[in-house]
Parts: sequence; structure tokens; C-alpha cells
Amino acid sequence: MKLIKKLMPLNNAEKIVFNNLFEYIEKNKKIKKANLIESLNRVLCEDIISPIDLPYFNRAAMDGYAVIAEDTFGASETNPIILNLVNNDEISSGEAKIIFTGEKLPKNADAVVMKEFCNEINNFVEIYKSVYPNENVSKVGEDVKKGEIVLKKGTIINPYHLNLLASLGIKKVNVYDLKFGIIPTGDELVSLEDVENIEEDIKKLNGKVINSNVYMLYGLVKNLGFNGKIYDIVEDNKDSLKNTIKLALKENDILLITGGTSVSERDITVETVKELGNILIHGVNIRPGKPFGLGVVNNKLIFMLSGYPVASAVQFELFIQRFFTKRKKIIMPLKRNIASELGRVDFVRVKINKYVDPIRITGSGVISSLTRSDGYILIPENVEGYEKGEFVEVYLF
Amino acid sequence: MKLIKKLMPLNNAEKIVFNNLFEYIEKNKKIKKANLIESLNRVLCEDIISPIDLPYFNRAAMDGYAVIAEDTFGASETNPIILNLVNNDEISSGEAKIIFTGEKLPKNADAVVMKEFCNEINNFVEIYKSVYPNENVSKVGEDVKKGEIVLKKGTIINPYHLNLLASLGIKKVNVYDLKFGIIPTGDELVSLEDVENIEEDIKKLNGKVINSNVYMLYGLVKNLGFNGKIYDIVEDNKDSLKNTIKLALKENDILLITGGTSVSERDITVETVKELGNILIHGVNIRPGKPFGLGVVNNKLIFMLSGYPVASAVQFELFIQRFFTKRKKIIMPLKRNIASELGRVDFVRVKINKYVDPIRITGSGVISSLTRSDGYILIPENVEGYEKGEFVEVYLF
Repeated sequence: MKLIKKLMPLNNAEKIVFNNLFEYIEKNKKIKKANLIESLNRVLCEDIISPIDLPYFNRAAMDGYAVIAEDTFGASETNPIILNLVNNDEISSGEAKIIFTGEKLPKNADAVVMKEFCNEINNFVEIYKSVYPNENVSKVGEDVKKGEIVLKKGTIINPYHLNLLASLGIKKVNVYDLKFGIIPTGDELVSLEDVENIEEDIKKLNGKVINSNVYMLYGLVKNLGFNGKIYDIVEDNKDSLKNTIKLALKENDILLITGGTSVSERDITVETVKELGNILIHGVNIRPGKPFGLGVVNNKLIFMLSGYPVASAVQFELFIQRFFTKRKKIIMPLKRNIASELGRVDFVRVKINKYVDPIRITGSGVISSLTRSDGYILIPENVEGYEKGEFVEVYLF
Repeated sequence: MKLIKKLMPLNNAEKIVFNNLFEYIEKNKKIKKANLIESLNRVLCEDIISPIDLPYFNRAAMDGYAVIAEDTFGASETNPIILNLVNNDEISSGEAKIIFTGEKLPKNADAVVMKEFCNEINNFVEIYKSVYPNENVSKVGEDVKKGEIVLKKGTIINPYHLNLLASLGIKKVNVYDLKFGIIPTGDELVSLEDVENIEEDIKKLNGKVINSNVYMLYGLVKNLGFNGKIYDIVEDNKDSLKNTIKLALKENDILLITGGTSVSERDITVETVKELGNILIHGVNIRPGKPFGLGVVNNKLIFMLSGYPVASAVQFELFIQRFFTKRKKIIMPLKRNIASELGRVDFVRVKINKYVDPIRITGSGVISSLTRSDGYILIPENVEGYEKGEFVEVYLF
């Protein structure tokens, strides 16, 4: 059997992949100025700095009466202070103005008395409680300060971000913009479209499996805000694969090939890409995902991913997802021991609740280990494992 | 000042909203049979039951040699057992077949010896280690069992789910399918499109704010897989609002009106909806989000949301998001005390890391309290607060 000679440490592989991705995006300006609606769920490729203070005026934080705080000093239930009700953009000493949450304070007002502590009678209002300056007031810049970084490069823009961006008067943002071609290879694959009745069909499939990775990869690409194009299954044949690669390189920025990179005699993908260009990486010391390959053809990157569902998911996560954006990270105690091998990085799928619970059945083909997981932990090269009760970092899906 | 007379407890309000949503969807069959690509990020409205075992054949979990386990008993490095190499779909006692991860075991084989423990010489293979039956084999149904529920109603379909669905030969799934009209109201609103240079413009805006909630609501609706249509800003005027509502009801299933429901004299939205149909809810004992309203006009639901960013986000979360899908929930200790009021449900935005850290500035307009948060906790009606160190449930965004 042919083996990948030497497995590259994850750190080195990550560096090579990330540098190449960075250069491709820089050189080819794979960036788009998107309006807010378009920017939803896309990855920000710039820091967003607030152009203004928010709020940009002092506003009421409660419904009530805008006053000059000093006027209310000494007010109590037994000894209310009486102020004149006015309806101007400005108040003077001895005056109050009705105000609702979010409204701009009239000039000279510096506090709001909650309506519960007031009693309106004709053109007067009785104040039963004193307020200090700025009480019940949202001051200029309380939410966001001018010049502050409000969103960082690498953020996937969510609905709440849209609200903030709009509130700051920001109409467009720069997001990454790439096209991914997704090529499935392998004689063992059957197209989902050819399945008529799966219960009957499996009797005839005789060890073949449904071409399922492409749907996942399409979804992963799409959820980074990118376009994904799925190509037809390519048989284990160099000429067929070359033709598809050449076509897909014309139509896309980056290719993902799934299958054909296993550490086996059938390593046709790597050989084919090598004949068309260069191989930068083949084999990384991770589990699952070891037979990862990276090639360059016509200055475009080709990611050679495993044919096994979990392995290809892990490779996408480590080498593509993590380049563009960071998962939310939490720290929690482990529910049981997990072992790892020195020199290798282990990607462990986990369920979380009050503890981090590693999922037991974790073969590289066991797709339910991903669908049932809430996130993952990475056990670094220099660690032999973690013990029950130890606090570990979990990246949340 | 006019007050909402009596605030409804959250439980009651939730029941009314959810029952009405359920009935509308059932009656009007607001469901779509989506293929896998279309189903990404949409909400499943049925349980998915596996039609087959996965894998549906016994397959190799390692690269190596398929054998009959019994043949290897007693093998060791000093005393290897020698088997005949064959290349058939079936092996007999004394035979072995080369096999790669994921491949179907030949008939009669019941174990795989990892290649590390084998040495191939011409048509023979030396086995240096015995294996027990089923060793290094993924048995039928190991990943998923036929008849098992693999995805539950209410799941937002992610890329990993697509892989699983395709692997099971499932080509289409039923997802919820709704159209939401989003109507902003309020004389205090300025259109984002009219902003030229925000730093200059705020000098002239004089207390007006940018119409930002509609972008957030659009994103929230979209991220449930639904269509959102944003309408132009409606001034605080019953006739204008009536016209927009009538138009939007024709074009959508559900309306979200943001603004105009504050507990104030300017409660035009509720009055307008009342003139067109019925009000089912007005005012819920939650914070933020108290001035929530639900109305029915022409058998369609109208959600009357606050004009304040955080309050409307909370209302969407509690009354719409949570109807369709459940957020991931974790349990962690609090970093500091939080107080609440008996009888009221508090929605507290939090940051999480090793502890749950409630965000301090939490006015209903402070949108950064949402963009900086990782999730939220709900303090129930009968709880006065939580103490530092106490374990609380966090719903993750």
C-alpha cells in the first residue's frame, strides 16, 4: 500500500492554507460592497468603526417628565414639588415637559422623573420624588461611542448587526465574495437524484453510497455567504477528473474536491492535481481528516477533501471556515476522560449542557456524530488527552 | 397618560400567540416540500424518520485487510499467521482481502486487520495481530438505525443535516413557508436611504432616529427561512397605517409592525388594528418588550412590536422565533448577581465564556447589548433574581 510519507503538523498546514487564501483574495480583490440586506449572513472583511455617537442626543430612558434635576431636590410624597407643564424644545427652571422613552430631552433638561412618581393637574405636574442629574437619561454615546470598533473583520453579519449598522447610518459594508466549485469523485458514489426508493435501492447498491458530501459542502459554503456550484460525480479516472477541474476552475475561484484522497492506492485526485499544477499539502496530522490535500492550478486553490462525511466536514472547518470567521468559544468541564495521541490534533465532537460530553461513536463516516453535536474541542499536538472535570474550550457550531 | 390597564403574564401571551400561529399554518397549509438545497436554513415542520440503516452494509472502519476473525487468533509479531490474498466479493477461511475505510466487507469477512499490523508478500499477507469479530468494522445501523428519528420538527436544517438526509436517500423534506410584511411606523423615523453623510445629517435630525428595526426584522424572518418584505415608513396617522396594513395583508401571511405601540398617548398602531379587526394581546409582563400587541385582521395575525431595537428583538424572539425553533441551551454559573421583579419575566442579555456575564447597560434601545451578547437568560415570574455562582440556563444566539 502507498502511504502519505510524512504527515504535516496542523499548525504548518493551517499557515500554508491561510496564507494562500489571503493572497488569492487580496490579489483578486474578492470583496464586495454589499448593502445591508445583501450583507446578512456574509463575512465582514473590514472592521466597522462607528461614525457617530449613539444615541447622538440625550434621550429619555423612561416615560415621564423631563426636568432640571435641581428643581426636584427635596421632593417627597408628603412634600411634592410643583412644576409648570410646557411643550417646547426648551425648558427653564420651574418647568417640566412630558416625555416618552427614546425621545430627545428638551434643552436645559437633564433628568427624567418616571411617570409613576408624578401627578398631572391641568397645566402643572406634582413631583413626588427627586432625581439626580442624568437620572433616567441615555446620554450621548451610551450605546456606541464615535470611533469605536462596533464589528470586527471576520464577523458573520446577523440580524442584530443590521440594526446597529442602520442605526449608525451605515448603508454598505465590505464582505468577502467567492465562488466555490464542488466536485465529487469516486466510483463508489451514486447520485441522490438516481435514488427512486431507498429501501429497495439499497438491495442493489452493493456497497455503493449516496453522493451526500456535496450537499453539506454547498451548505457550508453558502453559510459563509459564498456561491457554491455542485458538479456531477466524476468517476475514478484522471482524464475525466482533469476535464471537470479545468471547467470548474474557469467558473469558480476555489475548488473543493471530495473523495479520492484517501491514503490508499486509489489516490487519483492528488495525482491528477499534481499533473495540472502543484501540491502544497498532502496529509495532515489530524483526526479525523488526515488525508487532506491542497493544490494550486492556474493560481487557484484546490482543496482535496476526504470522501468520508465527517472527515470532509472537519477539513472544511479547520481550513476554510476558520480562515474567514471564528466560532463562539465557551469553557466548560468535561463529563469524562478523552484520550488523544501525542503529535496529532484531535477534533472531538461534543454535546454540551452543563458538561462537555464527547460523542462516543466517532468514525470518520459517522455523520450522526456531527448532526448530534453542539460543537467541538481540539486536543492539541502536545496533549495526550483531558481528564473528567477538566475545563476545556468548546467551539460552538 | 394612558396606560396598558393590565399586563398579561408571558405564559398566557405565549399560549395565545402560539395557538394562533399554529392554527393559521394548519388551516392555510403554510408548508413547502423542499429539496435539500432549498431546505438549507429552513425550519423542519415534521420529524424525519430514517428509512434505512446507515451504514446499510458492514463496512471497514480502517484501511487494512478484511479477514475472518477466527483465522487470526493467536497471531503475534513473533508468530504471524499467513493468509491468501484474494480479490473477490467473498472470502473463505484462510483468505484475506485488501480493504479501504468505508468499503463493504466481502462476504464471510467479519473483521479488519489494520494495515500497520500486516505485511504483504506476493499473494500472501502476514498478520501480526489477532482481531476479534467485528473489530474495525462499522456494523449495519451503527450510525443511524432504520425507524429512528434523525431530525426533529423545529430543527433549522444545517449543512451537516443535508449530508445525513442525502446519505439516507431523502430527497425532500417539509419546511414551514410564510411571507412576512414588515411595516415601520413613527414620525420620529428617518429612512436610511435618505442618509447622505451621517456625521453631517445628525446635526439636522434633531431627535429623529434612523429606521433600523426593519433590517433586523427582515434578517430574523429570513433566518427562519421565510420571505420578508419591508414597507416604507408610515407616519403616525391612522389612515396611512390602515392603507399600508390592508395592502400588506394582501401580500403576506403575517405582519410585523414596529413602532407605535409604546405605553403612551401615541398608541396609534393598536387603535388602528382595533378598528380593522381584533386585539388579542396588548401589554405583556416582560422586560424589555412590555408594549407587545397581537391583533387579527382578516384572519391574519398582526404582531405589534416596539419601536425600540432591543424590545422588538426580544418580542420577535419570544413570540415568533421560539414558536418555530428552540435555541441551543447550556447551563453555566453566573458571574454576578442579577435582580428581577416578582411577576415579571426578565430577558437578560449575557456574554458567556467560563461564566455567564449579564451585560450591564441594558436599556430597551441599547442595540449594542444585543450585538455584544452571546445569548440570553429568562428570569421567570416567580423568581426575584439569581445569585453569583448560581447555575442558570442560557439560550445561545
